[in-house]
Amino acid sequence: MDDFCFSDTDYFSSTRSLPSFEGVGFLDNRLDRDTEHRTETCLDDNLAHKQAGLYLLSGDTLLLKETETGGRHQAIFSLEDAKALGADLDCAILLGTDPAEADAPRLAAPLTEDAVTRLEGEKGQASLELMSIRHVGLNGLLPPDQLGAVAQARSLLTWHANHVYCANCGSKTVVSLGGARRDCPSCSAMHFPRTDPAVIMLVLHRDEEGVERCLLAHHTRFSGPMYTTLAGYLEQGETIEAAVRREVFEESAIRVGAVRYMASQPWPFPSSLMIGCYAEALSTEITVDPTELTDARWFTRQDVRTLMSRHVGAEEPHIPGRFSIAAWLIGGWVEMGD
Amino acid sequence: MDDFCFSDTDYFSSTRSLPSFEGVGFLDNRLDRDTEHRTETCLDDNLAHKQAGLYLLSGDTLLLKETETGGRHQAIFSLEDAKALGADLDCAILLGTDPAEADAPRLAAPLTEDAVTRLEGEKGQASLELMSIRHVGLNGLLPPDQLGAVAQARSLLTWHANHVYCANCGSKTVVSLGGARRDCPSCSAMHFPRTDPAVIMLVLHRDEEGVERCLLAHHTRFSGPMYTTLAGYLEQGETIEAAVRREVFEESAIRVGAVRYMASQPWPFPSSLMIGCYAEALSTEITVDPTELTDARWFTRQDVRTLMSRHVGAEEPHIPGRFSIAAWLIGGWVEMGD
Repeated sequence: MDDFCFSDTDYFSSTRSLPSFEGVGFLDNRLDRDTEHRTETCLDDNLAHKQAGLYLLSGDTLLLKETETGGRHQAIFSLEDAKALGADLDCAILLGTDPAEADAPRLAAPLTEDAVTRLEGEKGQASLELMSIRHVGLNGLLPPDQLGAVAQARSLLTWHANHVYCANCGSKTVVSLGGARRDCPSCSAMHFPRTDPAVIMLVLHRDEEGVERCLLAHHTRFSGPMYTTLAGYLEQGETIEAAVRREVFEESAIRVGAVRYMASQPWPFPSSLMIGCYAEALSTEITVDPTELTDARWFTRQDVRTLMSRHVGAEEPHIPGRFSIAAWLIGGWVEMGD
Repeated sequence: MDDFCFSDTDYFSSTRSLPSFEGVGFLDNRLDRDTEHRTETCLDDNLAHKQAGLYLLSGDTLLLKETETGGRHQAIFSLEDAKALGADLDCAILLGTDPAEADAPRLAAPLTEDAVTRLEGEKGQASLELMSIRHVGLNGLLPPDQLGAVAQARSLLTWHANHVYCANCGSKTVVSLGGARRDCPSCSAMHFPRTDPAVIMLVLHRDEEGVERCLLAHHTRFSGPMYTTLAGYLEQGETIEAAVRREVFEESAIRVGAVRYMASQPWPFPSSLMIGCYAEALSTEITVDPTELTDARWFTRQDVRTLMSRHVGAEEPHIPGRFSIAAWLIGGWVEMGD
């Protein structure tokens, strides 16, 4: 059955530390969600709390306020400010309480369409700006330990916006437990926010001369010449290891043997859990699935160093930014050879 | 950040094999799902295939036919037999094709209520019997490499049964791609089957004298004196490692440091992915959450061997059957000390 050992390559002994996670997005979320003990009044109770703070979002964008000192921005607004800025408080949800801020409640709310139009009109003039969450993360505009809460906010708000009706009976559902559930008053079904597990894997091979290569691909959805790992959603009735082997074979026709889990990353577009693995190739001949990939190739560490030397968006082939677990898996493998 | 190394205990070096997975349920699923290349006619095409075979289910139960030779049972029925037995073919779904059986299509369908009533009335007289999927797995009534397909069938059929309506607009949805998706004709939303990631972890501690203990708990939902690992659903915007630490702290007040992923298991009741880990305790004083647990205690390997010597359902404390990843995590830790 599944074996997580690379047959003859000790990529990580268990006493060796993982590569640094610095810069990888959405990993830290210090909020205490307390999902199991929430009451039906927890949303109102927490909104009424003097220290309550809200993240304000519109789809993939987050409202940021420049701080007077420059550097990091501010993304947590008081209830009063949220109202004035045009938050749709009927759709507010509770994220949790912040133990590092005397258990101050942290919530999230979507901005109304009017508010978004107004904010976009004022762009450049005010100290407020709607920015894509990816941009915020990639450019370090917020402290890293707030990015997990932003991911949580983005995933939860999207789930609520798309799950107003009961999938079981078609009736309108109501928010329950501060947003940790939606309940159907008609058929009594309870609906929980979903998280979609996805596997993301760097496929590795060592040839007879001991030269190691990794498999990177250019996906059909990329506009520029970016190369990255393979990835795909785990399906029902499937282990993580089986999903890795299936996805790699479907996309590249490479057979995978050993699979080694390395780390995971929440990816809130809208609500994936990226399960990052190294996978050992048992074959090397590539046949790409043209619906998914335009190209896939084997790269040596030296090849990858060249890709890594270019910035995201360059006209020459490059890899994704440090923000994603894909870049961490690729960079980690290069580091191991140094 | 997260570190998967146990500070001073090398539970698994990467060159050491994992404990045997023999008897652990739902791990093998050899079907080729081909989700990415399915067409709108794939369900009818595959149902019409001469070698098509269907699993017939009702909730958590699966229809089995005793074979003349005894031993393993038969769970795959021809289209003709499925019709005669009362399968609801309007709700049939495609699981995939079986490469080990000349790519014969494998499908699943729910049994009508009438069929279930008739089968239950004939119980004991006919060679057909509806059996709980857990019972089938625990007692080895099917070849292990069919259990993954049964898990897939159970998860998918339940998802379709509970997702007839569009969560986005409340309209009736239609099955698409042989059951790999449901589409809303009204708002064009596409709905994909969900898999809920859950963490399940054996918490380990080594005291100053070098004695290792594991944390096992009696859950409030257990009727008998069974002790097992802690577990819980991963939440949005959370890594696997953070979910392990949160769940352990919520349920037992134990602080966890290093987390090490070991293996995963599909758990189709109705559609979980159990992510099995070892977790290193940084504290030892237990305070149970009484809504989840009636008791939690530290057990030495010798203590666990005593629990393991008793069968499931015994009146003395025992652990779950080999079928679950919980038993595999517990047994694997005991083995390591032998």
